Amino acid sequence: MRRIFVIFAVMLPIVAAHAQETVYHDASKLTVIGKAVETTKPFTRIDTSCYRFNDKVIDDFACHSTGLAVLFATDSPFIKAKWQTSPANASENMTAIAQKGLDLYIRQDGEWVFAGVGRPDMAKGPDFDRHEGTIVKAMAPGRKECLMYLPLYDRLDSLFIGLADGSYIEPLANPFRYRIVIKGSSVTHGLAASRPGMSYVARFGRDNGLYCFNLGFSGKSKLQKEYAEYLADVEADAFIFDAFSNPSAETIHENFDRFVDIIRASHPETPLIFMQTERRESRNFDTWREDFESRKQAAALEEIKERMKHDRHIYFIPSDDFLGDEHIATSDGSHPTDLGFTYMLESISPKIRRILRRYGIRY
Amino acid sequence: MRRIFVIFAVMLPIVAAHAQETVYHDASKLTVIGKAVETTKPFTRIDTSCYRFNDKVIDDFACHSTGLAVLFATDSPFIKAKWQTSPANASENMTAIAQKGLDLYIRQDGEWVFAGVGRPDMAKGPDFDRHEGTIVKAMAPGRKECLMYLPLYDRLDSLFIGLADGSYIEPLANPFRYRIVIKGSSVTHGLAASRPGMSYVARFGRDNGLYCFNLGFSGKSKLQKEYAEYLADVEADAFIFDAFSNPSAETIHENFDRFVDIIRASHPETPLIFMQTERRESRNFDTWREDFESRKQAAALEEIKERMKHDRHIYFIPSDDFLGDEHIATSDGSHPTDLGFTYMLESISPKIRRILRRYGIRY
Repeated sequence: MRRIFVIFAVMLPIVAAHAQETVYHDASKLTVIGKAVETTKPFTRIDTSCYRFNDKVIDDFACHSTGLAVLFATDSPFIKAKWQTSPANASENMTAIAQKGLDLYIRQDGEWVFAGVGRPDMAKGPDFDRHEGTIVKAMAPGRKECLMYLPLYDRLDSLFIGLADGSYIEPLANPFRYRIVIKGSSVTHGLAASRPGMSYVARFGRDNGLYCFNLGFSGKSKLQKEYAEYLADVEADAFIFDAFSNPSAETIHENFDRFVDIIRASHPETPLIFMQTERRESRNFDTWREDFESRKQAAALEEIKERMKHDRHIYFIPSDDFLGDEHIATSDGSHPTDLGFTYMLESISPKIRRILRRYGIRY
Repeated sequence: MRRIFVIFAVMLPIVAAHAQETVYHDASKLTVIGKAVETTKPFTRIDTSCYRFNDKVIDDFACHSTGLAVLFATDSPFIKAKWQTSPANASENMTAIAQKGLDLYIRQDGEWVFAGVGRPDMAKGPDFDRHEGTIVKAMAPGRKECLMYLPLYDRLDSLFIGLADGSYIEPLANPFRYRIVIKGSSVTHGLAASRPGMSYVARFGRDNGLYCFNLGFSGKSKLQKEYAEYLADVEADAFIFDAFSNPSAETIHENFDRFVDIIRASHPETPLIFMQTERRESRNFDTWREDFESRKQAAALEEIKERMKHDRHIYFIPSDDFLGDEHIATSDGSHPTDLGFTYMLESISPKIRRILRRYGIRY
């Protein structure tokens, strides 16, 4: 009798653990949002077999899962994940969670509330590209509606969501409305956001219930015609541009009109909202940078003003207050942190909302 | 004649480059601030041969350059650096710039203004511990007073500052006044700050001209007597504690009185300002975490209230508003980002200043 009790006592935790066994579900079968034009691979934002950029780095960035998110509902008490990215090491000005991690929000009283992160494995070695972790555990019973942002600055080769055996998982309808396409530089790419869901694009979308597409290309957003040709194909209610961060003054003068012409050919009256590039903190003491940046800003203003004379659907947002006034809003002098994005959103959100309302975009 | 001109034209850039040749200066010979008790190694915050913590991780953290900064003045038009850290890879919830980089501020009209960062080399390999970079270049002529924060979350084995040949460099007097010792967890350590100078400790010091010491020990700040013994030796005008983030409710009850007793033995009337631990975002949906954290907070409040009955130099700062109310202030559910630290400073700064004024600490 005593031996039987001992065996039973030893077995109990095993039985309990079994009841919580994890079953992994392929996330590509769920709702994946954030692609301005559909792609064949599940977590790739632009299909480089359809759109050619003639630039190896741009091609790589096109394959990033930037701005993509998975939507599902479940009654599992925990959410885990296994995912595979590239083996590339994190850039020194961003967290690995933002670069190659996951960022989960759960709907609570109509709001998307932060629930947890999927932490990439930063141990070095051949398996550095394979990550596994618990995002949230010990949740109260009931249905959870989940929004999981995917890596901001890496490709995502596969994603499996781990739930308790016996719990359900189902795709959730996209709750975001209209189609707002945001094309830009590393600022838009979300380089120094702390988590994938903290880019200004993701926050603007979540805060306003708007369906925003992140087309940030770090260092590579120079008003090239290839981007314009892609954007011409996109179905959009509005375009927002962080277009003047990467090109020099000369490139702005050279490329701006052609860029707008190509988009306008297929979107004759869609609002094009151009944001001035931020006043970089790297200008504070660097006279060369000060000159380079102020000439960029002047070129942008000049081109925009000229274009606005003939196009009443072009808008311009000045950037004077994008980084606050305490010189504390960037991770490296150029890239806004979550604090920088907070300042930027405080500046741009009311202005963009006002413009969108003119076009019947209400939320 | 023509040949002479050609030779001269070819030589000119070489001469110009020569004029800007970089000379490296050992930073350990300059003013190094931030050690609450002096240490023998130049960039080590606590000497583990004098203070023993009986914990390998705490010993490692004691050797971090957390909160240390170098002060110097120069007329060089550029500032470069070569430095060596450990080869450890960055943690996934922080930037490598914060972990093992440099963060430079230059005094302008009495304010310390961000000038640039030293970016660690994130390429893998045996030399991953040796970093080199330009922090700011092309500066206008004249004297620059510089404050360079050292790695927040790594040891710093050496640091050399690169200046134009022929320019001067001299130690700068410590401009910060009084001695405010801040002991805490990873929040104090500055884990998710974007740069070394963006920890709340560094910001509070810079914003108020106060000499603050960063004694944050990530995950290892559990009111141990070894810390109290160290703090008893420290000369201080005030102590600030983020003391309730790491220990469980049980550990708080077990260790709190002994911890305060040891400090009080040598600092009978020095203000001890205890901050409640933040309400972690990881509680949002995790019922186990909710229970664990709320019991911790209750234990902290209970111990503090009891102690305040007999000690009128103990203060308590509630944490309800430390992370704002939008669930966007941490990198991973626990660690405040620059945005989180902004919220936290908005809450604690006026309260701490009010307390310090009672003790004649004015700035």
